[in-house]
Amino acid sequence: MRKIVIVGAVAGGATVGSQIRRLDSESEIVIFEKDRDMSFANCGLPYYIGGVVQDRDQILEATPEAFYDKKKITVKPYHEVTAVNTETMTVTVYNRESNETFEESYDTLILSPGCRANRLDVESDMIFTLRNMEDTDAIDQYIREHQVQRALVIGAGYISLEILENLYHRGIEPTLIHRSEEINKLMDQDMNAPIIDELEKRGISYRLNEEMTGVDGHTVTFKSGKQEDYDLIIEGVGVKPNSEFLKDSGLQLDDKGYLPVNARFETTVPEVYALGDLITQRYRHVDLPAHVPLAWGAHRGASIIAEQLAGDSNVAFPGFLGANIVKFFDYTFASVGVKPQELEHFNYTMVETKQNQHAGYFPGNERLHLRVYFENDSRKIIRAAAVGKDGADKRIDVLSMAMQNQLTVDELTDFEVAYAPPYSSPKDAINMIGYKARNK
Amino acid sequence: MRKIVIVGAVAGGATVGSQIRRLDSESEIVIFEKDRDMSFANCGLPYYIGGVVQDRDQILEATPEAFYDKKKITVKPYHEVTAVNTETMTVTVYNRESNETFEESYDTLILSPGCRANRLDVESDMIFTLRNMEDTDAIDQYIREHQVQRALVIGAGYISLEILENLYHRGIEPTLIHRSEEINKLMDQDMNAPIIDELEKRGISYRLNEEMTGVDGHTVTFKSGKQEDYDLIIEGVGVKPNSEFLKDSGLQLDDKGYLPVNARFETTVPEVYALGDLITQRYRHVDLPAHVPLAWGAHRGASIIAEQLAGDSNVAFPGFLGANIVKFFDYTFASVGVKPQELEHFNYTMVETKQNQHAGYFPGNERLHLRVYFENDSRKIIRAAAVGKDGADKRIDVLSMAMQNQLTVDELTDFEVAYAPPYSSPKDAINMIGYKARNK
Repeated sequence: MRKIVIVGAVAGGATVGSQIRRLDSESEIVIFEKDRDMSFANCGLPYYIGGVVQDRDQILEATPEAFYDKKKITVKPYHEVTAVNTETMTVTVYNRESNETFEESYDTLILSPGCRANRLDVESDMIFTLRNMEDTDAIDQYIREHQVQRALVIGAGYISLEILENLYHRGIEPTLIHRSEEINKLMDQDMNAPIIDELEKRGISYRLNEEMTGVDGHTVTFKSGKQEDYDLIIEGVGVKPNSEFLKDSGLQLDDKGYLPVNARFETTVPEVYALGDLITQRYRHVDLPAHVPLAWGAHRGASIIAEQLAGDSNVAFPGFLGANIVKFFDYTFASVGVKPQELEHFNYTMVETKQNQHAGYFPGNERLHLRVYFENDSRKIIRAAAVGKDGADKRIDVLSMAMQNQLTVDELTDFEVAYAPPYSSPKDAINMIGYKARNK
Repeated sequence: MRKIVIVGAVAGGATVGSQIRRLDSESEIVIFEKDRDMSFANCGLPYYIGGVVQDRDQILEATPEAFYDKKKITVKPYHEVTAVNTETMTVTVYNRESNETFEESYDTLILSPGCRANRLDVESDMIFTLRNMEDTDAIDQYIREHQVQRALVIGAGYISLEILENLYHRGIEPTLIHRSEEINKLMDQDMNAPIIDELEKRGISYRLNEEMTGVDGHTVTFKSGKQEDYDLIIEGVGVKPNSEFLKDSGLQLDDKGYLPVNARFETTVPEVYALGDLITQRYRHVDLPAHVPLAWGAHRGASIIAEQLAGDSNVAFPGFLGANIVKFFDYTFASVGVKPQELEHFNYTMVETKQNQHAGYFPGNERLHLRVYFENDSRKIIRAAAVGKDGADKRIDVLSMAMQNQLTVDELTDFEVAYAPPYSSPKDAINMIGYKARNK
């Protein structure tokens, strides 16, 4: 009987276990999870803090007991895999509750340890990061027990933005600081203007090019020299991969500590697969490496690994497009394709339109800003970004499908939109990008 | 100097005139419109009746005077083209105001006369149809002057549904009857159930398999034997093409009176083009004729004809996908691909999913019903339909883009959705269709 060991029990690990079990009722499946909880909905955590999502069972989707009863998959929480020996095909496991360490053998090893939050070099009991349900509970408990009224959010990536919005919804007065002027980095910087507008409209204070240098009690000192009192500090200052345990495994990490895998989510070592935030892949539409640590890829990887293990060697992943989206108060920011920072690898042209999201005369119409980058020689779309109060998600999903098919920008003229006044225009924003591009 | 004569000044005719002028500042352009108004927003008319859209200028987008000032295009309202002589390259024009008839020569003729509403064989001053702004004004005036309280809407196509909803919004008590049980025919019949639910939820009476047989004063007699009093009757019982004037033109109409054109919107006669509701085309994704009398196609045809006339013979229309959408109260009904009635031409399999439109735990989540038909041998998608309170438009637009690229149903697993809890799921409905199909 094959024994499959999985490292990590969140989006990647728990899903790949489930997917394998769907196709393979025989193999023994064991998942080691270093933290308390399995299968929580990471993307929902900020909204749980905000009280937007109130039902804990909806965020914490499974328990080891229920998982075993339903799927005959053993999940061991508080079990941290500290080393992998690919020659003996064993992992070293540290039981954080009993302080015991043991070796576990595997026939197939699947790595999905994820990332952990970076921490700034400042100590205080009121500083938190948010990566899992334990963090969420700690923040929630701290807010309730300390009558938190003023919170400092450090960083301006999508997690920081979501936390800030949710603290605001909870009635806490948030302040945002960020060490540079580059916020929400997956988006074109000039398209982030509504983030600032949304802050200012609500009187939420923010400072760019600002850093926290120290905390004394409630008093926070900043690089600018300012001193302000806060009751809570959330650091959203990036992540690093949980890959130190692979140091002597023979698996080759990239220079940032991520693990490259091939189109079958295989590593360079036989019977060792990886998925989730740990891995790097290739882009689908251009010849560049892609690091897309988001939920869709974890789920897709889980299915592909399960199908590989079930013997279907035809299934392979054609690569990432990098589709991503974040809501910030009334606005949606979405993009797909290479990152803004990666555009420098191409000779490209940018085309954009700012137009009605649906028929101008129909109530609720909002302006949509849609932008598409295409490669000059091939005219293939390499990146698209959209911002607006309505319809940005739809346009980026359509363009993700277009890029899945290596569409040229000119072919967007023939995109047949489902048109009625509440939904779009007879010349939809996507069509307009095509028409404008044809003039270039 | 080339003289371009256009028949019809609504979506197809006015747009093709504008598009030509963009590329060609020289040619003389004359548009004959048999009715009063040009360039009105057909799709907005029901909402103008309902008061959902109140600004008349937004529905009536242009006047002949403004159009001439801006674009040097002559629009002649109340001028009906009654015959075309393709040998002498002239049209016969009847001036409905002066009762004069004259001949006008053309170098290029573009036909966009549209369709007109069918009428039932029952006479009454309170019976109206809705195709243009004149009809809209007449209905609006009649409602105001006759204190309309109860209205009968006959037919259950998308115009009837939109009118019914808008009469209801205006505070009028509507009743719907339809001669068969097949409503909203572009949608799979079983997916129309929410239409009935929406009616019943609001206490709006309806009867299927019912017909109006006579009207005496306010009293309407029905096939069922019922007699009921109404203040207004709207007939939405289909349309027929305005193509009688082409009888002796040498242009070959199909058996329903529509005019087939090729990928360049050319007819079989040199220098005669056609677009809009009058024409039939081919489907893009399957080898069948397509009649898609909707706004997107009129606009796309206008651009292609203009580019042809400007000498760009590379531009051709790859065919229709038939994307369509209608809102009915809280629900959206959308589909793309061959019509349900056309599925019989294929060996196909249907796959469907009923799932959360976005993360189940996020507020405002609604169930989405998504269905995809694929051809068994090629596994290419031939039709998709979606119904729900939220997100149906997005999924059909994505699938329209997929079908634009001849995607197989299996490739939907690799659709990279832009995921965050307010927008979708890590396994979006579109992905799920792919996963389910792979098991078939």
